Amino acid sequence: MTDEILPALAYRPLDLPPVDLETIANVREFEAPARERIHEAAWAYLAGGAWDGHTIRANDRAFDGFRLRPRVLRDVASVSPMTTILGRAAAMPVGIAPAALHALAHPDAELATARAAAAEGTIVTVSTVASRTIEDVAAAAPDARRWFQLYVQHDWDQTRSLVERAAAAGYEAIVVTVDLPVLGYRDDLLRVRFDPGPGAYANLPLRDTWRAGRELDELIDLRNVPMTWERLDEIRSWAPLPLILKGIMTGEDARLGIDHGADGIWVSNHGGRQLDRVHAPIEVLEEVVDAVEGRAEVYMDGGIRRGTDVLVALGLGATAVFTARPLLWALACAGEPGVVHALRILKEEVARALALLGAASPAEVTRDHVSPARGIARP
Amino acid sequence: MTDEILPALAYRPLDLPPVDLETIANVREFEAPARERIHEAAWAYLAGGAWDGHTIRANDRAFDGFRLRPRVLRDVASVSPMTTILGRAAAMPVGIAPAALHALAHPDAELATARAAAAEGTIVTVSTVASRTIEDVAAAAPDARRWFQLYVQHDWDQTRSLVERAAAAGYEAIVVTVDLPVLGYRDDLLRVRFDPGPGAYANLPLRDTWRAGRELDELIDLRNVPMTWERLDEIRSWAPLPLILKGIMTGEDARLGIDHGADGIWVSNHGGRQLDRVHAPIEVLEEVVDAVEGRAEVYMDGGIRRGTDVLVALGLGATAVFTARPLLWALACAGEPGVVHALRILKEEVARALALLGAASPAEVTRDHVSPARGIARP
Amino acid sequence: MTDEILPALAYRPLDLPPVDLETIANVREFEAPARERIHEAAWAYLAGGAWDGHTIRANDRAFDGFRLRPRVLRDVASVSPMTTILGRAAAMPVGIAPAALHALAHPDAELATARAAAAEGTIVTVSTVASRTIEDVAAAAPDARRWFQLYVQHDWDQTRSLVERAAAAGYEAIVVTVDLPVLGYRDDLLRVRFDPGPGAYANLPLRDTWRAGRELDELIDLRNVPMTWERLDEIRSWAPLPLILKGIMTGEDARLGIDHGADGIWVSNHGGRQLDRVHAPIEVLEEVVDAVEGRAEVYMDGGIRRGTDVLVALGLGATAVFTARPLLWALACAGEPGVVHALRILKEEVARALALLGAASPAEVTRDHVSPARGIARP
Amino acid sequence: MTDEILPALAYRPLDLPPVDLETIANVREFEAPARERIHEAAWAYLAGGAWDGHTIRANDRAFDGFRLRPRVLRDVASVSPMTTILGRAAAMPVGIAPAALHALAHPDAELATARAAAAEGTIVTVSTVASRTIEDVAAAAPDARRWFQLYVQHDWDQTRSLVERAAAAGYEAIVVTVDLPVLGYRDDLLRVRFDPGPGAYANLPLRDTWRAGRELDELIDLRNVPMTWERLDEIRSWAPLPLILKGIMTGEDARLGIDHGADGIWVSNHGGRQLDRVHAPIEVLEEVVDAVEGRAEVYMDGGIRRGTDVLVALGLGATAVFTARPLLWALACAGEPGVVHALRILKEEVARALALLGAASPAEVTRDHVSPARGIARP
Repeated sequence: MTDEILPALAYRPLDLPPVDLETIANVREFEAPARERIHEAAWAYLAGGAWDGHTIRANDRAFDGFRLRPRVLRDVASVSPMTTILGRAAAMPVGIAPAALHALAHPDAELATARAAAAEGTIVTVSTVASRTIEDVAAAAPDARRWFQLYVQHDWDQTRSLVERAAAAGYEAIVVTVDLPVLGYRDDLLRVRFDPGPGAYANLPLRDTWRAGRELDELIDLRNVPMTWERLDEIRSWAPLPLILKGIMTGEDARLGIDHGADGIWVSNHGGRQLDRVHAPIEVLEEVVDAVEGRAEVYMDGGIRRGTDVLVALGLGATAVFTARPLLWALACAGEPGVVHALRILKEEVARALALLGAASPAEVTRDHVSPARGIARP
Repeated sequence: MTDEILPALAYRPLDLPPVDLETIANVREFEAPARERIHEAAWAYLAGGAWDGHTIRANDRAFDGFRLRPRVLRDVASVSPMTTILGRAAAMPVGIAPAALHALAHPDAELATARAAAAEGTIVTVSTVASRTIEDVAAAAPDARRWFQLYVQHDWDQTRSLVERAAAAGYEAIVVTVDLPVLGYRDDLLRVRFDPGPGAYANLPLRDTWRAGRELDELIDLRNVPMTWERLDEIRSWAPLPLILKGIMTGEDARLGIDHGADGIWVSNHGGRQLDRVHAPIEVLEEVVDAVEGRAEVYMDGGIRRGTDVLVALGLGATAVFTARPLLWALACAGEPGVVHALRILKEEVARALALLGAASPAEVTRDHVSPARGIARP
Repeated sequence: MTDEILPALAYRPLDLPPVDLETIANVREFEAPARERIHEAAWAYLAGGAWDGHTIRANDRAFDGFRLRPRVLRDVASVSPMTTILGRAAAMPVGIAPAALHALAHPDAELATARAAAAEGTIVTVSTVASRTIEDVAAAAPDARRWFQLYVQHDWDQTRSLVERAAAAGYEAIVVTVDLPVLGYRDDLLRVRFDPGPGAYANLPLRDTWRAGRELDELIDLRNVPMTWERLDEIRSWAPLPLILKGIMTGEDARLGIDHGADGIWVSNHGGRQLDRVHAPIEVLEEVVDAVEGRAEVYMDGGIRRGTDVLVALGLGATAVFTARPLLWALACAGEPGVVHALRILKEEVARALALLGAASPAEVTRDHVSPARGIARP
Repeated sequence: MTDEILPALAYRPLDLPPVDLETIANVREFEAPARERIHEAAWAYLAGGAWDGHTIRANDRAFDGFRLRPRVLRDVASVSPMTTILGRAAAMPVGIAPAALHALAHPDAELATARAAAAEGTIVTVSTVASRTIEDVAAAAPDARRWFQLYVQHDWDQTRSLVERAAAAGYEAIVVTVDLPVLGYRDDLLRVRFDPGPGAYANLPLRDTWRAGRELDELIDLRNVPMTWERLDEIRSWAPLPLILKGIMTGEDARLGIDHGADGIWVSNHGGRQLDRVHAPIEVLEEVVDAVEGRAEVYMDGGIRRGTDVLVALGLGATAVFTARPLLWALACAGEPGVVHALRILKEEVARALALLGAASPAEVTRDHVSPARGIARP
């Protein structure tokens, strides 16, 4: 079935066996075997950053700018990574960030990812440009906490239809991506013709053949169909769901978002794929949290790889964090069980790190648990 | 013709075909193929920096000291890189900085560069030490916005003649280079005898054979013919053209320049070729802008390679930026079409970065769009 | 005898001769030959850090954040590293930090280490998880200044028994490790099954076979038997010995420790083996010293390799420092004489550095002898 | 003759021809060929630093912490590196720092170095542990500005004799080294037995065979013969010469030095050969200059390799700088003409850098010409 959908970028299940999950102790270890299992052009698409990649590298490294301050002899006997997000319980403060075309990693695509999220009790954010329909993902994982990520389309009716379908299919929230008025400048995609084949984008009435790079602009380039704060108010009226703004990088925009009724502010630089030379999300998280003043929940993605990264974000005021690339790697390595394993690792790391930090739950992590790293002169 | 002019450093058109421009996605990618197409001694001359090269390296890397702060959901439907420089429209806030001897890169030399500037609607600054005469460049690209870069000569009448010729040939402004009282210390040029051959400097009545390195001092070393602020006033009286001071690196000198009637302050460290251990221009840009207090336009060169670099400079207060080496590389790779391609890349990058920054034009970029990068301790 | 105790990880005395101590000029030089003499799995256990190892690397490098300020023409004729710790003389302000299972390095295990400490007049801290019993170590080195490091056990009576045995055997102080409510996340130990064999932990009534990694949690994981500040008061009542809290990393906890009657605060991040992304001890030492306000002695471990490191710590307010890994390396290289040589090197380095700092003794080192390193921009 | 003096470390004039000085454009370029011409053990002695070498590396790199601020359109027509040191003219603000045993580099030893200093009009500081006598150096270069560097000896009469001989031989000043109460810890010298042979130290009545490393302590280790501020007053009374204190690294000691009548404060960390983990001299220069408040001249050595380094030091308040290793390299490469060439390079670099800085002489360089480098986050 996958081969029909993605002739050029088909997952190659026969080439390599699934990875032995016992050998994977942290989610970064999924990267190398995933690379062997994903088509070269698809890998370039998934892994790449915009312009010179300053931002994509910064996302990882910016955590080095912070230190955890562990407190001792606290009662952590009942330590648990359980938390509350948008008023409902989540098994941990780590959810699945949206990413395009999970079928690039595995034929089960978003069905597998959503089932893994359900199994591990966390949130999955399904992308507008998923390989499976909004409804199919819902049917595959009815009990999963599902959020729907919205790319605004040139066609306004089409945009509204996506929101209504998500609401009808039991998605909990609409995550509007606000940092993509145009695509970021991607050197490699200007040269590689990335063609996922006809029908690859299950939720969009695209023409049969569609190509990334410059042509992706045609889909969602808003230079001629402005998406502004006023339009956002209209989107909000389409469904009685919480609205989350993904892609906020300044305190000013966080405040504007709150003023326009956002229920969540998602700090993100789109995985380093849009504007280059911007801060890593972890670097501006505190600025955003301060601007929000508790009037909405704050999330972030970008560079989350270990439980210790999660705690830094919680300490700086995030309610939860999200990650995508490591889970796509896990999906490529072993399908749904791979994603389950990845989520379990993150859950165990968060629990263990919480206990070592002297906090029995994510809610007990405070600003005092984090301090800036001190600059070290290199002799 | 070129072979007659530049026997030692002749462009070698037969050795290698022009570069396929479709393969070039950013201007840095012109560097490697250019190096194959330029004579080794000429390359050393064009690429080198003074002393230990601290400054030339800093010019590139100093942009890492800044971050862009993208704003979302702004109306960027009509985003355009068009701007206004010295009261006239320019297609983008990126112009061509002066560089010596374009014939080292390609036999069409400055004729090609000026034509490319005209085609892409931006400014070309023609050097005193160009390979083609002031008049020939004007004739080749009558519609180009041409500025003339002036090296003050020992011979004061000769200096005046250069300014008058530029004014007569329709150049828009005089860019006086003020950071070359003597040549910077260039280790390699003390060893390599760089001889462009008789007549290489089309605008100067030099002796037939002329060699760079220590002997270049003889031409423009001002140790025995002081060029001071007072002399500048005299230069200003020679032509009714705007006067731009190129090579300012402090707020103090920017203020002095304004007091002496400069219409533009061009922040530059001469591409790292004069004094070493100085700041990168981007690091002192804000100091200069603050000192100028809007009484003149401020430009800069040094390390501009991508549209994101341009936005950092605009955010810090520059009206426009200039770049030379990448365009010489493009010239060496493919002549005039190469330079056109390079300018188009920069234009597209600026437009795309503007939209992602939430600004519909260069004029909408403000100081709030830039913040210092946060230091990261390396563990 | 050793072979019986540690079948899997036995020291291999026949493979390699002892290292020629004349060739060892600083304690880091023991590392490479030690690695050849220690079983691979044991080396991984001893050398490793938690999570990504940010902390274990930071421990070494954080000293680069400080500079010594040497004073000249002081009377250092009688310079000596002698100092006073907990009211008694010590030959130098460097003691032996606790580490598990010295038999992994050498069959003489803690007997050798303690004898070396006695010979060189410094303190040895014996671990709860030593290879030799509390009593055997005391018998081997009756004159050594011996401290006992306590891991609180699930079994509270068993915990009390350890403290009482130490007091009865003439240990001077109880060093309670407070940073191990659970084990740190160790990627490698999740894969390598590290089994020191039956009876390896001489002081603990463990089941015959015991394995590190996840199973070590079963021993001392306090998630179901909370160890809190209140419990600490009870421990204090068991023996009339000074109580030292090892693993404090914040001023807040140092203050709490003093309030609960601690006689010493030992700044440590457990050699980078517990929570990752925390500060190096040397970076928080001043914060702790300031919080303690002279009401207790402050010690530290983490990254001490040279006499100059020791002086930085003294300048920031430590009474003494401790180190473990270099002494285990020395133990593996040459047994007791190796440890003696290592301690002598440290002693000579401290004496020489004191004289060069202008201080005739550790007591003369003050806060003014240390300043932050100045950040250096890398061009 | 040399072979008789230095059997083990003899200069090997037959092995390699003198270096072609035309190929040397900056003084660092003497290093590699010098290494080929100096005995391995001697090279280790000359090149090495104490402990881990943090300080010796910092000396070079610390200049990266500063930037020059060039001023333009100043009258630099008559630019000259001439300056005044201790009331007398010097051809440039760069002198020769003391170093032991120039015969390790070349058989002409200090005779060549002093003659080169005379030829180029700068100061040479002759070491107590020179290869030639105080008197022979004076006779070889009677017109050189000669300073005598004093190592205080155990034998106080012997110390006085050195000072009196220097005064009698026309040395201008006594430079008392104050940072050597004991030798720094040198790992390599503890292993390598460095034996320059009988009579190597021309000014000292040493036993015939003498070995560096631990035994050098026996000569000048002051642990049992304290050298303090009071002793300094006595030294001052022995000769009517200016007294310079070499090895000051704090404002406090600079102030004490002035109070004890010093005419010059020489900031130095002994080329990184004494205490490790100390600041580079350039980093503390301003602190010292501020403490001195113009009551004495301030000099520095450490990492001076280029004219731009010199200007940074002048801007921070030094009257002059000194350097040793590059001149020893030059001496090894080509004897006296090599040192002359090295001094000429430095002189030319200083002149050229002065003009580019907008200063016509060293005296015109001010604090405003230097600013801290801005930290750059590495992405």
